[in-house]
Amino acid sequence: MLVDGVHYRTIWIDKDSGKLCMINQLVLPHRFEIVQCETHAAMCAAIKDMVVRGAGLIGASAGYGMWLGALEAPSSSLSEFDEAMVLFGDALKATRPTAKNLAWAVDRQLAAIKKGTSVKEKIAIALNTAQAIADEDAEFCRRIGEHGKKIIQELAGAKAKTNPGEPVNILTHCNAGWLAFVDYGSALSPVFAAHDSGIPVHVWVDETRPRNQGANLTAWELSRHGVPHSLIVDNAGGHLMQHNMVDMVITGADRVTRCGDAANKIGTYLKAVAARDCGVPFYVALPSSTFDFAMRDGVAEIPIEERDGAEVRFVQGKLPDGSLASVQICPDDTGARNWGFDVTPARLITGLISERGVCRASEEAILELFQEHRP
Amino acid sequence: MLVDGVHYRTIWIDKDSGKLCMINQLVLPHRFEIVQCETHAAMCAAIKDMVVRGAGLIGASAGYGMWLGALEAPSSSLSEFDEAMVLFGDALKATRPTAKNLAWAVDRQLAAIKKGTSVKEKIAIALNTAQAIADEDAEFCRRIGEHGKKIIQELAGAKAKTNPGEPVNILTHCNAGWLAFVDYGSALSPVFAAHDSGIPVHVWVDETRPRNQGANLTAWELSRHGVPHSLIVDNAGGHLMQHNMVDMVITGADRVTRCGDAANKIGTYLKAVAARDCGVPFYVALPSSTFDFAMRDGVAEIPIEERDGAEVRFVQGKLPDGSLASVQICPDDTGARNWGFDVTPARLITGLISERGVCRASEEAILELFQEHRP
Repeated sequence: MLVDGVHYRTIWIDKDSGKLCMINQLVLPHRFEIVQCETHAAMCAAIKDMVVRGAGLIGASAGYGMWLGALEAPSSSLSEFDEAMVLFGDALKATRPTAKNLAWAVDRQLAAIKKGTSVKEKIAIALNTAQAIADEDAEFCRRIGEHGKKIIQELAGAKAKTNPGEPVNILTHCNAGWLAFVDYGSALSPVFAAHDSGIPVHVWVDETRPRNQGANLTAWELSRHGVPHSLIVDNAGGHLMQHNMVDMVITGADRVTRCGDAANKIGTYLKAVAARDCGVPFYVALPSSTFDFAMRDGVAEIPIEERDGAEVRFVQGKLPDGSLASVQICPDDTGARNWGFDVTPARLITGLISERGVCRASEEAILELFQEHRP
Repeated sequence: MLVDGVHYRTIWIDKDSGKLCMINQLVLPHRFEIVQCETHAAMCAAIKDMVVRGAGLIGASAGYGMWLGALEAPSSSLSEFDEAMVLFGDALKATRPTAKNLAWAVDRQLAAIKKGTSVKEKIAIALNTAQAIADEDAEFCRRIGEHGKKIIQELAGAKAKTNPGEPVNILTHCNAGWLAFVDYGSALSPVFAAHDSGIPVHVWVDETRPRNQGANLTAWELSRHGVPHSLIVDNAGGHLMQHNMVDMVITGADRVTRCGDAANKIGTYLKAVAARDCGVPFYVALPSSTFDFAMRDGVAEIPIEERDGAEVRFVQGKLPDGSLASVQICPDDTGARNWGFDVTPARLITGLISERGVCRASEEAILELFQEHRP
């Protein structure tokens, strides 16, 4: 997507230096900063500390992280090399347990690298696979935009009859924009596509505590792209839905089971259950790499990451002098608990938007689109 | 309640100076500061800026605010005095439109003051009525604690059989503790009463964006009283309920209709609809002064205050050097919308806990306890 007129992806290899570059998502929206990542260990830290974050970008970053690992792996024997790569993969997988894309990218790399017949070839395969994962992520997100745009277009058509001149009001939670992927995004890709086609849209941006990815990243993306939006606290969505101020909810996902249960940023379930109560359609957008076809019951099976309580006890932002600071929002002796995700059961989801099209959130409908995963 | 061993109310007249004193709730939990309020205009500002806040405390503050007004009203004629008091009352009512207690206290004062036969007597009546409102608020909250404690006791009994040694996990939203009233609180009064009786409880404290009354005030109250608690983001409650980590939800209310619809801090509805989805009992605690017997349909009729978007765009807290600061959490050009309350329909409420006992959230059950409001 464009940043001040220049096209960026969230992660790329610089053509001149050959270095792996990433947008530092820890300092947005206050600073636009590009950082380099030179080692496998640095990539693990970048994923864990959320310099890079978001379902697709974690996958792409893990893909590049495996390439960085390949450059560091012992080259004395192929078996030693392969063993080292498995350990590099395990370390990457352990950084964020909920996200399916991460494990998916590591496993794809391991399967590809295994086929190389020399260390040199394995390293070349790792680089090609990393690039392929990134390119595919961007292309799949572009297609999600095309499929999802049709839903917004239909809502706009209906609204033009009942409330002429009013935009389609779309509520989203967390950031599932291009910053969460390599390009385009999942939940925001249909929004960008609709806006670019001249369909009037307005986005309610949940701030998404504790890390405020909505306020920091979604608002920044929409602002840079010129999409009308309003920031709201995570508490506000139910009130808006009760008063017909939300025409659809669309979120991303970190893992979706074969039955359609969707793990996404903590708080997504609260919006989904309110949407059902108020009759508002609730969509989840995801590339196929986010499906976990080995799981059925999301609430029971998807591992939910618990993060440091400090993320709840402190809030980061910009001081009047422009510097960044963290402020403590509770008593010194108050402890906090901090789960990163929750699971929205399939029964609350109106539809899943993937690169292959829109389907109901049911095993039957999902396997209709992904026939290769039929038993 | 006790603060470092000394008994405090949230608002009181100092015996030595005769001045009206209040705990400054804008700087808690980082500083415990007492401020004086000397004029009617200062009280309007204190309520609007939330130096004092919370359903019952707003009512008590309005009661004292009317006394301050009486001291300033023209004393040349009784009719001029009464007319001035009506205007003082209107100004107080306009500070926070959603809270029922505020209008209730103003109207109670106007009716009482009207009966005075001299300006001197009217001023004395205003003072006595303000004190009576405050005393009654404290006493009603104490009784809410006794009634609500029985519910917690029953849950504790059931839990002792299924999960021996585990506390009753209670989720609350915003601050409906003693800081929101004159003393004891509504939602937290049963929690304090249960804890003081030796019933093991643990409170999940929603931080309650945008003003973080949970993180700032509820956590502080529980910490000072020694009640085990954990701070969570507003997004977390649904996940906890899905995993049987919440035994009951209890919140306060700012206005409850005769049919049992309850306006409370924005985000309460999201917790209520999740509680229903997960089979978790959801209680609303309130003194009778919070009922609005003139309203039936809360979602359609209760006016919802919209506040400055700056409350969403900035978060206040403590810097490492101990000073207080606000940090900006979104891009410079992002606008925010900020509704202060939402309405939880009666169908989602397990029971209402008032000073007269516990009842279902239905017109029939409410009027059984409040027979004087029968048509």
